[in-house]
Amino acid sequence: MNAEIIGVGSELLLGQIANTNAQYLSKKFAELGINVYYHTVVGDNASRLKAAIETAQKRADLIVFTGGLGPTKDDLTKETIASVLGVSLTTNEQALESIEAYFTQTNRVMTPNNKKQAIVLEGSTVLPNDFGMAPGMGITVDNISYMLFPGPPKELYPMYESYGQAYLLNKLEVKESIESRVLRFFGIGESQLETEIEDLLDAQTNPTIAPLAADGEVTLRLTAKHTDSNVAHQLLDQMEQSILKRVGDYFYGYDTTSLHNELINELMNQELTIASAESLTGGLFSERLTSIPGAGSIVNGAIVAYQNEIKQQVLGVQQQTLRNEGAVSEQCAIEMALGVKNLLKTDIGISFTGVAGPSKQEGKAVGTVYIGIAYKENKTHVYQLQLSGSRQGIRARTVNYGCHYALNLLKNN
Amino acid sequence: MNAEIIGVGSELLLGQIANTNAQYLSKKFAELGINVYYHTVVGDNASRLKAAIETAQKRADLIVFTGGLGPTKDDLTKETIASVLGVSLTTNEQALESIEAYFTQTNRVMTPNNKKQAIVLEGSTVLPNDFGMAPGMGITVDNISYMLFPGPPKELYPMYESYGQAYLLNKLEVKESIESRVLRFFGIGESQLETEIEDLLDAQTNPTIAPLAADGEVTLRLTAKHTDSNVAHQLLDQMEQSILKRVGDYFYGYDTTSLHNELINELMNQELTIASAESLTGGLFSERLTSIPGAGSIVNGAIVAYQNEIKQQVLGVQQQTLRNEGAVSEQCAIEMALGVKNLLKTDIGISFTGVAGPSKQEGKAVGTVYIGIAYKENKTHVYQLQLSGSRQGIRARTVNYGCHYALNLLKNN
Repeated sequence: MNAEIIGVGSELLLGQIANTNAQYLSKKFAELGINVYYHTVVGDNASRLKAAIETAQKRADLIVFTGGLGPTKDDLTKETIASVLGVSLTTNEQALESIEAYFTQTNRVMTPNNKKQAIVLEGSTVLPNDFGMAPGMGITVDNISYMLFPGPPKELYPMYESYGQAYLLNKLEVKESIESRVLRFFGIGESQLETEIEDLLDAQTNPTIAPLAADGEVTLRLTAKHTDSNVAHQLLDQMEQSILKRVGDYFYGYDTTSLHNELINELMNQELTIASAESLTGGLFSERLTSIPGAGSIVNGAIVAYQNEIKQQVLGVQQQTLRNEGAVSEQCAIEMALGVKNLLKTDIGISFTGVAGPSKQEGKAVGTVYIGIAYKENKTHVYQLQLSGSRQGIRARTVNYGCHYALNLLKNN
Repeated sequence: MNAEIIGVGSELLLGQIANTNAQYLSKKFAELGINVYYHTVVGDNASRLKAAIETAQKRADLIVFTGGLGPTKDDLTKETIASVLGVSLTTNEQALESIEAYFTQTNRVMTPNNKKQAIVLEGSTVLPNDFGMAPGMGITVDNISYMLFPGPPKELYPMYESYGQAYLLNKLEVKESIESRVLRFFGIGESQLETEIEDLLDAQTNPTIAPLAADGEVTLRLTAKHTDSNVAHQLLDQMEQSILKRVGDYFYGYDTTSLHNELINELMNQELTIASAESLTGGLFSERLTSIPGAGSIVNGAIVAYQNEIKQQVLGVQQQTLRNEGAVSEQCAIEMALGVKNLLKTDIGISFTGVAGPSKQEGKAVGTVYIGIAYKENKTHVYQLQLSGSRQGIRARTVNYGCHYALNLLKNN
């Protein structure tokens, strides 16, 4: 089954909102093994919508519409579909009652245009709207299936989950199970990763392997299909093993996790506490860690030492270190990490110092970064990075590297 | 000029990401008066991309592509366009040099597939990529203009702003000037703001007024058109005055500024320094302020005191305050603000304590927030809030309120 998702609404073409409905439905369809080959967005305009439907009919056997089912004159999705398919429109009594009940319940007066929302395509299966007024629809004409959903995500998502998916499963002839798993990597570029597993990528059929690079990390989505879901899982396990044999050193977690999430988990497992001394990152490391509920038992606190006097007076960095080596130096990173570990009495102290830009500092180039880690009887580790990109990008990637180094230390000690 | 935006990438069709690039470009094109009639998304598949291009050629005279310019085999946007348009591909020496420089700078080994990124359409205008490797392009063939942008937003946005828009303005034949201005408000809800200026909204023609609510603030975008750009500016000025007469108390700045940006500006103007004591916000206030270049002369640092012992030992909060009133209290907020002001020797100390959730704390409800400000000979101010929403939402809005209160204090003292 090949699908096209058509988003209807001028607000999408004006950039007022992103087409998150297409994203949501695409994810759901991928789970069912439905190929989505195109997304289209068209405005509230009958002739352009008509043209979009005719284009989709040539390339898809499932056409899904989102938006344009509301009460106003702008809403013309079902009217246009009716005219293209040569199907009549009819008032659905059940939908009308539920609209009237909605107005009674909320003590509001029902304006006549709201009745328009109860009109459906004749012969369609009506999908009830539990969180709004306009019902959805499903209909098959000339071997093409059409589904219509309302635009607001808070109506669409529950409608799909409660009624839409069941309707769709009924249409699908293949009863295959689709299992997918995302492997997350850090510290390796997309092109290097792909080079390492080039033969696996070239040979991929089942599971398929989809690489994606974002925010300085690379993910691989493995998707396996089989009539037996256990076999699909085994296929994923085998492929995962083959991949990790090559690039396992860079692998850090599955699915929607993040480096800071993994770090918090590892600290919790080992019952260790952490504190950060942040110059370059301005508190971002601490902010990320404490964004996770329950971090309070792990993260004692942080010292943001933006000025040298604070590095000295609060963290105990030595004056001669600042004078001889500067604040952006290996030695300063080490002293900051030790300082915050001692001051806030934690098992681990981690420090970040560097040049976020836009200008050089102490004669050191933008993107020069030192990360210090003090752990176990004041044993220290220091890492130097040379990053590129914007100020925000450098800060964000520095925090990711900090989590990565700390995780590796914790796992190997 | 009628545009179509074609997003290329299987990750969009799998629902891994939303098509925010189309949203971004649509907004930018609307500002220039370019009609966007269609968005299309197609996967990394040459024959379907070819079909999408041919469809777009029938209905648009500006076709903009995002994605598919990277180094891997999946990336085939320019190759496919070259074949459809009958244009050759050629290596751009400048782009190649900048890719090689990128690898040298970051101490990474350049794999051969990266050279592919320097290949461009023969005869195209190359749009440099200041934040990545693949350059963009602009080319006109048979009266249709084509523009190619890389997929990652952090490369696309600055490329459009630095080079893409200028290229496009050059192509536009309409010489009407379009001027727009965004007014930003904090502390007033969208519906209240709209009620206050309802008659202006109803009567709008030139300038138009577009309200938008996001992240706890409300903005109004005013857009005026005129052949004389001075007149367009005057129209904006007049409308702005009418609006601010009604709701000026909530206005804090123009265009892309933010509350933390305005706070940094105000502190710079008054030559004052600040430091924060953060519990609830975990460093987010400090992170926001230091995200602005030059904040180093204003922000001395911050103490993230997530544990009560640190509030006591580092910030000097009294034990009896913690025992009698708790960490989430007016008195604790005041002592934290004074403590950080004294410890980090700043003009202003600001503190954040509260319950971010998901669970109650000290018997206080999720969303209970206290913000303390110490300013001028230890005069203190404290503000209580009751916020709702997610953990992240509560933390983010708390920081916005902190900036808002500090700004108001600075402006009225």
